[in-house]
Amino acid sequence: MSPIVTLTTDFGYRDYYIGAIKGALLSVCSNLNIVEISHSVTPQNILEAAFLLRNAATEFPVGSVHLAVIDPGVGSKRRAIAVACKQHFWVGPDNGLFSFAINRERAEVREITNANLRKARVSKTFHGRDLFAPCAAHLAAGFPFDQIGPIVTDSWCLKEQQPTVSGDIIQGEVFHIDRFGNAITNIDTTVLSSILRSDEDVYNVTVCSGSQELPISSTYSDVGKGMPVALIGSSNLLELAVNGGNGASLLQIKIGAPITLKIKNKL
Amino acid sequence: MSPIVTLTTDFGYRDYYIGAIKGALLSVCSNLNIVEISHSVTPQNILEAAFLLRNAATEFPVGSVHLAVIDPGVGSKRRAIAVACKQHFWVGPDNGLFSFAINRERAEVREITNANLRKARVSKTFHGRDLFAPCAAHLAAGFPFDQIGPIVTDSWCLKEQQPTVSGDIIQGEVFHIDRFGNAITNIDTTVLSSILRSDEDVYNVTVCSGSQELPISSTYSDVGKGMPVALIGSSNLLELAVNGGNGASLLQIKIGAPITLKIKNKL
Amino acid sequence: MSPIVTLTTDFGYRDYYIGAIKGALLSVCSNLNIVEISHSVTPQNILEAAFLLRNAATEFPVGSVHLAVIDPGVGSKRRAIAVACKQHFWVGPDNGLFSFAINRERAEVREITNANLRKARVSKTFHGRDLFAPCAAHLAAGFPFDQIGPIVTDSWCLKEQQPTVSGDIIQGEVFHIDRFGNAITNIDTTVLSSILRSDEDVYNVTVCSGSQELPISSTYSDVGKGMPVALIGSSNLLELAVNGGNGASLLQIKIGAPITLKIKNKL
Repeated sequence: MSPIVTLTTDFGYRDYYIGAIKGALLSVCSNLNIVEISHSVTPQNILEAAFLLRNAATEFPVGSVHLAVIDPGVGSKRRAIAVACKQHFWVGPDNGLFSFAINRERAEVREITNANLRKARVSKTFHGRDLFAPCAAHLAAGFPFDQIGPIVTDSWCLKEQQPTVSGDIIQGEVFHIDRFGNAITNIDTTVLSSILRSDEDVYNVTVCSGSQELPISSTYSDVGKGMPVALIGSSNLLELAVNGGNGASLLQIKIGAPITLKIKNKL
Repeated sequence: MSPIVTLTTDFGYRDYYIGAIKGALLSVCSNLNIVEISHSVTPQNILEAAFLLRNAATEFPVGSVHLAVIDPGVGSKRRAIAVACKQHFWVGPDNGLFSFAINRERAEVREITNANLRKARVSKTFHGRDLFAPCAAHLAAGFPFDQIGPIVTDSWCLKEQQPTVSGDIIQGEVFHIDRFGNAITNIDTTVLSSILRSDEDVYNVTVCSGSQELPISSTYSDVGKGMPVALIGSSNLLELAVNGGNGASLLQIKIGAPITLKIKNKL
Repeated sequence: MSPIVTLTTDFGYRDYYIGAIKGALLSVCSNLNIVEISHSVTPQNILEAAFLLRNAATEFPVGSVHLAVIDPGVGSKRRAIAVACKQHFWVGPDNGLFSFAINRERAEVREITNANLRKARVSKTFHGRDLFAPCAAHLAAGFPFDQIGPIVTDSWCLKEQQPTVSGDIIQGEVFHIDRFGNAITNIDTTVLSSILRSDEDVYNVTVCSGSQELPISSTYSDVGKGMPVALIGSSNLLELAVNGGNGASLLQIKIGAPITLKIKNKL
């Protein structure tokens, strides 16, 4: 059975960095199953990577190790951490990368200080290869979590941009646009429920984005080809799209665009 | 031995979709060997993916499962299907994706209806993660194909753009331009044979594209650096290229450009 | 235990080529662990791939097979070779790809002539699939290296652009710009040592690039956000960067830009 290590970075696909990290992983444990989540995170964009990890890493089986290297502070005093949570392990810099994937109250966070878990010579600019990869591989191979280093109680945590709720109105914003042009907002089903009188009521909500006013549908093809649609996407977040087209481009939506939700019959 | 599941999508490399699909696959069968064919299919371009699958998936060993998610109709009434053909399995939406990879007459197609082969909760916008991936993983792990669901006899089939043959002349077109600028046409060796008097006669054929008139060569380097060349490529299709350069750009060829073949001494 | 085959190509992520190569590998040995280094090498840029292999492939464990297909001469008379060096194997065209990764004096190079190590039918334009992949998979599966074909003593070797040293001054140039905009030069620590009076002296060196004059720091965050920095990077080469920004863009550095190093107190 090959232990699973997932890999999420902002290294892109052109440089030697991801190859070097994979080599470093396999040099510790040569039967790892390395599974790539993405290397296309916008350089140094921790928030984007945190969203990716929330939606992808949590799909993996129990026992998986998630190695994430988006590390603008490499070589500085930012800590290197490993986290045990939800029967998964998470390894990377202490900069908030795992904020949305783990449950902080139920997570055990440790600083990686054990000198056996790194290369003999650690480059000051590439901890991904020399420190995080060896640690992740050792964890995947069964190294005991409590011997990694001391417990950390003040690990860095990103603040999610939360939508505001005021009576029957939710104000949120677009925070990701995917490859298809679907504009994903920060409004999740939990917040949405707060203005609903019943579960079925979701389809009585109107979404306002710029001059667009849309009802919530259940899937893209509920509307005709080329027509705009609002729906609850696969990550339980409200998204705006165009059936068969690029929604963000056709609806002129950019990251940060304000989105308003209202109960329909109160408009 | 790790069962092989190949993965072909239009999800790109930036979003969480491919990570989530890989997690869903491994959650069913944690020792799968997931092999990526491409995630760079043009969004919702079924024809392009069908060509990819024809040329890549068929290279894999017997027993491989090919998961393909180019799914503009997700959430609509399009069927989810699994196909057994050539001792491979193929899993995806019923939209023609497998048209060129399988032999339809010898394929068994089933609709995926067995409720044990999907997630407990199926998102209406991401069947790749919630329905196709679990089904592919179960098949790879040995789940009996005949228990997937009822046989389908009218699965969707793409019509390949066929070149026309008239006497000694073939009229075709460019339907793919690769990363090197090689312009791949829809003229395959079978059609080409129809105007030849012998196997050797291929090198007596002239290819006309715009104002270019080219003999057929055997490989790129048969002509000097920077010179245009026509040849039968690795997918048995006629292609136009420039040795050491970007053919499509230098020869000003776009997808859809008409290509004419004639027996040389009849010009 | 899955034998490791790494894969480095200029095929990009859109076409069927890398899928076909993976299929060809697994058709010979279905339990291979295929590990991708990069497919984003600039088309036909052997020098770029040689640098990648130097910095990534050498991180892998002993016994790994490195398959590299950057092959502008495919179908011509250039040889197909396999190399045994540093307890790794290297398979690809004889065009210098492995120049910086292997130690030529200690390498055994063989031409791939054994007809059992290729497909029954070899395309003249895709040796990656039909010849190199089968050979790499057989080697990974334990095929004896000395039965691949005859020893080659005159394999192609790239000349590394070497910086020039004159007294206390080194003249080099930028030869790679990575995804973050870090400008990597051809000046390595060995050359740097030649003008130093002691190991500690490195921080008394000034780097001149255009109108910039920089001391050497130890990591990006030694300087403030947005500030330029010169340092010895993770591949032991001098690089120029901007902390938290795109160095090449902000400092207006292009590939080929001249870089000068001087002992500081002699300026």
